Amino acid sequence: MTNRGGDTVASAVTNLDLHDIARAARTYGVRSFYVVTPLVDQRELARQIVSHWISGAGATCNPTRKEALELIRIRENIEDVIWEIGEEFGREMGREAGLEEYRIPKTVVTGARARSGSLSHERFREMMIDGTPYLLQFGTAWGLSEEVFQTADHVLKPIAGPTEYNHLSVRSAASILLDRLLGER
Amino acid sequence: MTNRGGDTVASAVTNLDLHDIARAARTYGVRSFYVVTPLVDQRELARQIVSHWISGAGATCNPTRKEALELIRIRENIEDVIWEIGEEFGREMGREAGLEEYRIPKTVVTGARARSGSLSHERFREMMIDGTPYLLQFGTAWGLSEEVFQTADHVLKPIAGPTEYNHLSVRSAASILLDRLLGER
Repeated sequence: MTNRGGDTVASAVTNLDLHDIARAARTYGVRSFYVVTPLVDQRELARQIVSHWISGAGATCNPTRKEALELIRIRENIEDVIWEIGEEFGREMGREAGLEEYRIPKTVVTGARARSGSLSHERFREMMIDGTPYLLQFGTAWGLSEEVFQTADHVLKPIAGPTEYNHLSVRSAASILLDRLLGER
Repeated sequence: MTNRGGDTVASAVTNLDLHDIARAARTYGVRSFYVVTPLVDQRELARQIVSHWISGAGATCNPTRKEALELIRIRENIEDVIWEIGEEFGREMGREAGLEEYRIPKTVVTGARARSGSLSHERFREMMIDGTPYLLQFGTAWGLSEEVFQTADHVLKPIAGPTEYNHLSVRSAASILLDRLLGER
Protein backbone atom coordinates (compact mmCIF):
# COMPACT_ATOMS: atom_id res chain seq x y z
CA MET A 1 0.00 0.00 0.00
CA THR A 2 0.90 3.67 -0.06
CA ASN A 3 0.88 5.75 3.12
CA ARG A 4 -0.01 9.40 3.60
CA GLY A 5 3.51 10.46 2.52
CA GLY A 6 3.60 8.28 -0.60
CA ASP A 7 5.89 5.53 0.81
CA THR A 8 5.12 1.88 0.20
CA VAL A 9 4.01 0.27 3.46
CA ALA A 10 2.09 -2.72 4.83
CA SER A 11 -1.26 -1.56 6.26
CA ALA A 12 -3.18 -3.08 9.15
CA VAL A 13 -6.04 -5.54 8.75
CA THR A 14 -9.34 -4.02 9.92
CA ASN A 15 -12.02 -6.27 11.39
CA LEU A 16 -14.85 -4.63 9.47
CA ASP A 17 -12.96 -4.82 6.15
CA LEU A 18 -13.07 -8.59 6.54
CA HIS A 19 -16.77 -8.68 7.43
CA ASP A 20 -18.10 -6.05 5.03
CA ILE A 21 -16.15 -7.14 1.98
CA ALA A 22 -16.82 -10.84 2.63
CA ARG A 23 -20.57 -10.13 2.92
CA ALA A 24 -20.52 -8.12 -0.31
CA ALA A 25 -18.44 -10.81 -2.04
CA ARG A 26 -20.95 -13.47 -0.95
CA THR A 27 -23.89 -11.30 -2.12
CA TYR A 28 -22.40 -10.78 -5.57
CA GLY A 29 -21.25 -14.36 -6.09
CA VAL A 30 -17.50 -13.71 -5.84
CA ARG A 31 -15.53 -16.93 -5.55
CA SER A 32 -12.86 -15.99 -2.98
CA PHE A 33 -11.81 -12.94 -1.00
CA TYR A 34 -8.05 -12.91 -0.48
CA VAL A 35 -6.64 -10.84 2.36
CA VAL A 36 -2.99 -10.24 1.55
CA THR A 37 -0.42 -8.89 4.00
CA PRO A 38 3.31 -9.57 4.47
CA LEU A 39 2.94 -9.03 8.24
CA VAL A 40 2.79 -12.32 10.09
CA ASP A 41 0.96 -10.87 13.12
CA GLN A 42 -1.69 -9.31 10.87
CA ARG A 43 -2.26 -12.65 9.12
CA GLU A 44 -2.53 -14.29 12.53
CA LEU A 45 -5.06 -11.67 13.68
CA ALA A 46 -7.13 -12.09 10.50
CA ARG A 47 -7.10 -15.89 10.95
CA GLN A 48 -8.34 -15.56 14.53
CA ILE A 49 -11.23 -13.34 13.46
CA VAL A 50 -12.19 -15.59 10.58
CA SER A 51 -11.96 -18.76 12.65
CA HIS A 52 -14.22 -17.28 15.35
CA TRP A 53 -16.96 -16.87 12.75
CA ILE A 54 -16.31 -20.06 10.79
CA SER A 55 -15.74 -22.65 13.49
CA GLY A 56 -15.90 -20.78 16.81
CA ALA A 57 -18.81 -19.33 18.79
CA GLY A 58 -19.76 -17.05 15.90
CA ALA A 59 -20.52 -19.94 13.55
CA THR A 60 -23.53 -21.19 15.50
CA CYS A 61 -24.71 -17.75 16.61
CA ASN A 62 -24.63 -16.29 13.08
CA PRO A 63 -24.61 -18.87 10.27
CA THR A 64 -25.05 -16.29 7.49
CA ARG A 65 -21.90 -14.53 8.66
CA LYS A 66 -20.09 -17.87 8.54
CA GLU A 67 -21.21 -18.30 4.94
CA ALA A 68 -19.60 -14.96 4.03
CA LEU A 69 -16.37 -15.30 6.02
CA GLU A 70 -15.76 -18.74 4.52
CA LEU A 71 -14.79 -16.93 1.31
CA ILE A 72 -11.74 -15.39 3.03
CA ARG A 73 -8.27 -16.74 2.31
CA ILE A 74 -5.35 -15.10 4.10
CA ARG A 75 -2.08 -15.01 2.17
CA GLU A 76 1.38 -13.43 2.40
CA ASN A 77 1.81 -11.98 -1.07
CA ILE A 78 -0.07 -11.36 -4.26
CA GLU A 79 2.19 -13.48 -6.49
CA ASP A 80 1.21 -16.59 -4.52
CA VAL A 81 -2.44 -15.65 -4.84
CA ILE A 82 -2.13 -15.36 -8.61
CA TRP A 83 -0.52 -18.80 -8.87
CA GLU A 84 -3.05 -20.33 -6.50
CA ILE A 85 -5.97 -19.06 -8.58
CA GLY A 86 -4.21 -20.15 -11.79
CA GLU A 87 -3.70 -23.64 -10.44
CA GLU A 88 -7.27 -23.93 -9.16
CA PHE A 89 -8.87 -22.72 -12.39
CA GLY A 90 -6.46 -24.80 -14.45
CA ARG A 91 -7.42 -27.90 -12.51
CA GLU A 92 -11.11 -27.21 -13.00
CA MET A 93 -10.66 -26.55 -16.70
CA GLY A 94 -8.57 -29.71 -16.88
CA ARG A 95 -11.37 -31.76 -15.40
CA GLU A 96 -13.63 -30.53 -18.13
CA ALA A 97 -11.17 -30.58 -21.00
CA GLY A 98 -9.17 -33.66 -20.06
CA LEU A 99 -5.91 -31.75 -19.46
CA GLU A 100 -4.33 -29.86 -16.59
CA GLU A 101 -2.59 -26.50 -16.82
CA TYR A 102 -2.33 -23.18 -15.02
CA ARG A 103 -4.94 -20.61 -15.88
CA ILE A 104 -3.45 -17.35 -14.58
CA PRO A 105 -6.04 -14.71 -13.67
CA LYS A 106 -5.99 -11.24 -15.20
CA THR A 107 -5.29 -8.63 -12.55
CA VAL A 108 -7.63 -5.65 -12.33
CA VAL A 109 -6.93 -2.66 -10.12
CA THR A 110 -8.92 0.32 -9.08
CA GLY A 111 -8.10 3.52 -7.24
CA ALA A 112 -9.52 6.92 -6.38
CA ARG A 113 -7.50 8.85 -8.96
CA ALA A 114 -8.35 9.07 -12.69
CA ARG A 115 -5.72 7.53 -15.00
CA SER A 116 -5.59 7.67 -18.78
CA GLY A 117 -6.58 4.52 -20.66
CA SER A 118 -8.61 3.10 -17.79
CA LEU A 119 -11.53 0.80 -18.38
CA SER A 120 -15.17 1.73 -17.72
CA HIS A 121 -17.14 -0.46 -15.33
CA GLU A 122 -19.75 -1.13 -18.00
CA ARG A 123 -17.12 -2.39 -20.44
CA PHE A 124 -15.48 -4.61 -17.83
CA ARG A 125 -18.89 -6.00 -16.85
CA GLU A 126 -19.27 -7.20 -20.45
CA MET A 127 -15.71 -8.59 -20.59
CA MET A 128 -16.27 -10.78 -17.52
CA ILE A 129 -18.91 -12.84 -19.27
CA ASP A 130 -16.34 -14.96 -21.17
CA GLY A 131 -15.29 -16.90 -18.04
CA THR A 132 -11.71 -15.59 -17.74
CA PRO A 133 -10.62 -15.58 -14.07
CA TYR A 134 -10.13 -12.03 -12.82
CA LEU A 135 -8.41 -10.91 -9.63
CA LEU A 136 -9.83 -7.57 -8.53
CA GLN A 137 -7.42 -5.71 -6.22
CA PHE A 138 -8.33 -3.11 -3.62
CA GLY A 139 -5.98 -1.16 -1.40
CA THR A 140 -6.43 0.10 2.14
CA ALA A 141 -4.61 3.09 3.73
CA TRP A 142 -3.75 5.56 0.93
CA GLY A 143 -4.27 2.99 -1.83
CA LEU A 144 -2.34 0.37 -3.78
CA SER A 145 1.28 1.21 -4.57
CA GLU A 146 2.19 2.61 -7.99
CA GLU A 147 3.92 -0.64 -8.95
CA VAL A 148 0.62 -2.51 -8.68
CA PHE A 149 -1.00 -0.09 -11.12
CA GLN A 150 1.94 -0.39 -13.54
CA THR A 151 1.89 -4.19 -13.65
CA ALA A 152 -1.88 -4.78 -13.66
CA ASP A 153 -3.60 -6.16 -16.75
CA HIS A 154 -6.42 -3.63 -16.43
CA VAL A 155 -7.01 -0.40 -14.54
CA LEU A 156 -10.64 0.48 -13.85
CA LYS A 157 -11.98 4.02 -13.80
CA PRO A 158 -12.47 5.41 -10.30
CA ILE A 159 -15.95 5.31 -8.78
CA ALA A 160 -17.47 8.76 -9.03
CA GLY A 161 -20.49 10.54 -7.69
CA PRO A 162 -21.67 13.97 -8.78
CA THR A 163 -19.02 15.71 -6.61
CA GLU A 164 -15.20 15.99 -6.77
CA TYR A 165 -14.83 14.20 -3.42
CA ASN A 166 -13.05 10.85 -3.90
CA HIS A 167 -12.43 9.45 -0.43
CA LEU A 168 -14.67 6.43 -0.09
CA SER A 169 -13.68 3.74 2.41
CA VAL A 170 -12.33 0.53 0.89
CA ARG A 171 -15.46 -1.18 2.23
CA SER A 172 -17.72 1.23 0.32
CA ALA A 173 -15.57 1.17 -2.83
CA ALA A 174 -15.47 -2.63 -2.97
CA SER A 175 -19.23 -2.90 -2.37
CA ILE A 176 -20.08 -0.31 -5.02
CA LEU A 177 -17.72 -1.82 -7.56
CA LEU A 178 -19.11 -5.33 -7.06
CA ASP A 179 -22.60 -3.92 -7.52
CA ARG A 180 -21.61 -2.12 -10.72
CA LEU A 181 -19.93 -5.24 -12.11
CA LEU A 182 -22.26 -7.96 -10.88
CA GLY A 183 -25.44 -6.37 -9.49
CA GLU A 184 -28.89 -7.24 -10.77
CA ARG A 185 -30.28 -4.37 -12.82
CA MET B 1 -34.53 -1.19 14.88
CA THR B 2 -35.40 -4.87 15.05
CA ASN B 3 -33.20 -7.33 16.92
CA ARG B 4 -32.48 -10.96 16.13
CA GLY B 5 -35.71 -12.04 17.83
CA GLY B 6 -37.90 -9.50 16.06
CA ASP B 7 -38.29 -7.08 19.01
CA THR B 8 -38.01 -3.33 18.50
CA VAL B 9 -34.79 -2.09 20.11
CA ALA B 10 -32.31 0.79 20.02
CA SER B 11 -29.06 -0.35 18.40
CA ALA B 12 -25.55 0.90 19.16
CA VAL B 13 -23.75 3.52 17.12
CA THR B 14 -20.72 2.06 15.31
CA ASN B 15 -17.69 4.24 14.64
CA LEU B 16 -17.24 3.01 11.07
CA ASP B 17 -20.93 3.51 10.24
CA LEU B 18 -20.36 7.21 10.89
CA HIS B 19 -17.17 7.39 8.82
CA ASP B 20 -18.14 5.17 5.90
CA ILE B 21 -21.63 6.52 5.40
CA ALA B 22 -20.49 10.16 5.82
CA ARG B 23 -17.77 9.63 3.21
CA ALA B 24 -20.25 8.02 0.80
CA ALA B 25 -22.77 10.80 1.48
CA ARG B 26 -20.11 13.43 0.73
CA THR B 27 -19.07 11.59 -2.46
CA TYR B 28 -22.62 11.43 -3.78
CA GLY B 29 -23.60 14.98 -2.84
CA VAL B 30 -26.01 14.09 -0.04
CA ARG B 31 -26.96 17.14 2.02
CA SER B 32 -26.98 15.74 5.56
CA PHE B 33 -26.44 12.41 7.27
CA TYR B 34 -28.65 12.12 10.36
CA VAL B 35 -27.67 9.63 13.03
CA VAL B 36 -30.79 8.94 15.07
CA THR B 37 -30.86 7.15 18.42
CA PRO B 38 -33.03 7.55 21.53
CA LEU B 39 -30.07 6.56 23.74
CA VAL B 40 -28.44 9.60 25.29
CA ASP B 41 -25.07 7.89 25.81
CA GLN B 42 -24.97 6.77 22.19
CA ARG B 43 -25.65 10.31 21.01
CA GLU B 44 -22.91 11.53 23.33
CA LEU B 45 -20.48 8.93 21.91
CA ALA B 46 -21.35 9.85 18.34
CA ARG B 47 -20.83 13.55 19.13
CA GLN B 48 -17.40 12.84 20.61
CA ILE B 49 -16.33 10.94 17.51
CA VAL B 50 -17.62 13.59 15.14
CA SER B 51 -16.10 16.46 17.12
CA HIS B 52 -12.68 14.76 17.12
CA TRP B 53 -12.72 14.84 13.31
CA ILE B 54 -14.41 18.19 12.86
CA SER B 55 -12.70 20.38 15.45
CA GLY B 56 -10.27 18.11 17.33
CA ALA B 57 -6.93 16.58 16.37
CA GLY B 58 -8.51 14.75 13.43
CA ALA B 59 -9.52 17.95 11.67
CA THR B 60 -5.98 19.10 10.96
CA CYS B 61 -4.56 15.62 10.41
CA ASN B 62 -7.23 14.62 7.90
CA PRO B 63 -9.17 17.54 6.35
CA THR B 64 -11.03 15.38 3.81
CA ARG B 65 -12.44 13.30 6.67
CA LYS B 66 -13.58 16.54 8.33
CA GLU B 67 -15.39 17.47 5.13
CA ALA B 68 -17.34 14.19 5.27
CA LEU B 69 -18.10 14.11 9.00
CA GLU B 70 -19.41 17.66 8.88
CA LEU B 71 -22.50 16.22 7.17
CA ILE B 72 -23.43 14.33 10.35
CA ARG B 73 -26.26 15.57 12.56
CA ILE B 74 -27.06 13.56 15.68
CA ARG B 75 -30.69 13.53 16.76
CA GLU B 76 -32.99 11.74 19.20
CA ASN B 77 -35.88 10.73 17.00
CA ILE B 78 -36.94 10.61 13.40
CA GLU B 79 -39.99 12.88 13.80
CA ASP B 80 -37.72 15.78 14.82
CA VAL B 81 -35.51 15.07 11.81
CA ILE B 82 -38.47 15.25 9.46
CA TRP B 83 -39.57 18.61 10.90
CA GLU B 84 -36.04 19.95 10.85
CA ILE B 85 -35.61 19.13 7.18
CA GLY B 86 -39.06 20.50 6.42
CA GLU B 87 -38.26 23.76 8.14
CA GLU B 88 -34.88 24.09 6.44
CA PHE B 89 -36.19 23.40 2.95
CA GLY B 90 -39.20 25.56 3.57
CA ARG B 91 -36.97 28.46 4.59
CA GLU B 92 -34.85 28.04 1.49
CA MET B 93 -37.87 27.82 -0.76
CA GLY B 94 -39.30 30.84 1.04
CA ARG B 95 -36.18 32.83 0.35
CA GLU B 96 -36.66 32.13 -3.31
CA ALA B 97 -40.42 32.39 -3.50
CA GLY B 98 -40.96 35.20 -1.00
CA LEU B 99 -42.85 33.08 1.53
CA GLU B 100 -41.97 30.73 4.36
CA GLU B 101 -43.50 27.34 5.00
CA TYR B 102 -42.58 23.82 5.98
CA ARG B 103 -41.52 21.53 3.20
CA ILE B 104 -41.79 18.06 4.73
CA PRO B 105 -39.49 15.47 3.12
CA LYS B 106 -40.81 12.23 1.69
CA THR B 107 -39.53 9.25 3.66
CA VAL B 108 -37.94 6.41 1.73
CA VAL B 109 -36.97 3.13 3.36
CA THR B 110 -35.05 0.15 2.23
CA GLY B 111 -34.45 -3.30 3.66
CA ALA B 112 -33.02 -6.68 2.78
CA ARG B 113 -36.40 -8.37 2.25
CA ALA B 114 -38.54 -8.08 -0.92
CA ARG B 115 -41.93 -6.40 -0.38
CA SER B 116 -44.77 -6.06 -2.84
CA GLY B 117 -45.27 -2.65 -4.43
CA SER B 118 -41.73 -1.49 -3.78
CA LEU B 119 -40.01 1.01 -6.02
CA SER B 120 -37.09 0.21 -8.34
CA HIS B 121 -33.87 2.17 -7.87
CA GLU B 122 -34.00 3.30 -11.49
CA ARG B 123 -37.49 4.71 -11.05
CA PHE B 124 -36.60 6.49 -7.81
CA ARG B 125 -33.48 7.94 -9.46
CA GLU B 126 -35.77 9.61 -12.01
CA MET B 127 -38.23 10.79 -9.34
CA MET B 128 -35.49 12.62 -7.42
CA ILE B 129 -34.83 15.03 -10.26
CA ASP B 130 -37.85 17.21 -9.40
CA GLY B 131 -36.20 18.68 -6.28
CA THR B 132 -38.51 17.17 -3.64
CA PRO B 133 -36.59 16.63 -0.36
CA TYR B 134 -36.22 12.93 0.40
CA LEU B 135 -35.15 11.32 3.66
CA LEU B 136 -33.56 7.96 2.95
CA GLN B 137 -33.64 5.68 6.01
CA PHE B 138 -31.27 2.83 6.79
CA GLY B 139 -31.40 0.49 9.74
CA THR B 140 -28.60 -1.19 11.67
CA ALA B 141 -28.86 -4.45 13.65
CA TRP B 142 -31.62 -6.60 12.07
CA GLY B 143 -33.10 -3.66 10.17
CA LEU B 144 -35.70 -0.94 10.59
CA SER B 145 -38.80 -1.86 12.56
CA GLU B 146 -41.97 -2.85 10.74
CA GLU B 147 -43.69 0.39 11.77
CA VAL B 148 -41.11 2.40 9.78
CA PHE B 149 -41.92 0.39 6.65
CA GLN B 150 -45.66 0.84 7.19
CA THR B 151 -45.50 4.61 7.56
CA ALA B 152 -42.88 5.40 4.89
CA ASP B 153 -43.89 7.26 1.74
CA HIS B 154 -41.86 4.87 -0.42
CA VAL B 155 -40.25 1.47 0.02
CA LEU B 156 -37.32 0.70 -2.26
CA LYS B 157 -36.57 -2.74 -3.65
CA PRO B 158 -33.77 -4.55 -1.83
CA ILE B 159 -30.28 -4.45 -3.32
CA ALA B 160 -29.62 -7.75 -5.03
CA GLY B 161 -26.66 -9.52 -6.55
CA PRO B 162 -26.83 -12.72 -8.58
CA THR B 163 -27.16 -14.86 -5.41
CA GLU B 164 -29.89 -15.33 -2.79
CA TYR B 165 -27.63 -14.00 -0.02
CA ASN B 166 -29.02 -10.72 1.39
CA HIS B 167 -26.85 -9.82 4.36
CA LEU B 168 -24.90 -6.73 3.34
CA SER B 169 -23.63 -4.44 6.10
CA VAL B 170 -25.48 -1.14 6.47
CA ARG B 171 -22.25 0.55 5.30
CA SER B 172 -22.23 -1.46 2.08
CA ALA B 173 -25.98 -1.12 1.51
CA ALA B 174 -25.95 2.65 1.98
CA SER B 175 -22.92 3.04 -0.32
CA ILE B 176 -24.41 0.87 -3.05
CA LEU B 177 -27.78 2.56 -2.86
CA LEU B 178 -26.28 6.06 -3.09
CA ASP B 179 -24.30 4.90 -6.11
CA ARG B 180 -27.39 3.47 -7.78
CA LEU B 181 -29.38 6.64 -7.09
CA LEU B 182 -26.72 9.31 -7.63
CA GLY B 183 -23.64 7.70 -9.20
CA GLU B 184 -22.16 8.93 -12.46
CA ARG B 185 -22.88 6.43 -15.21
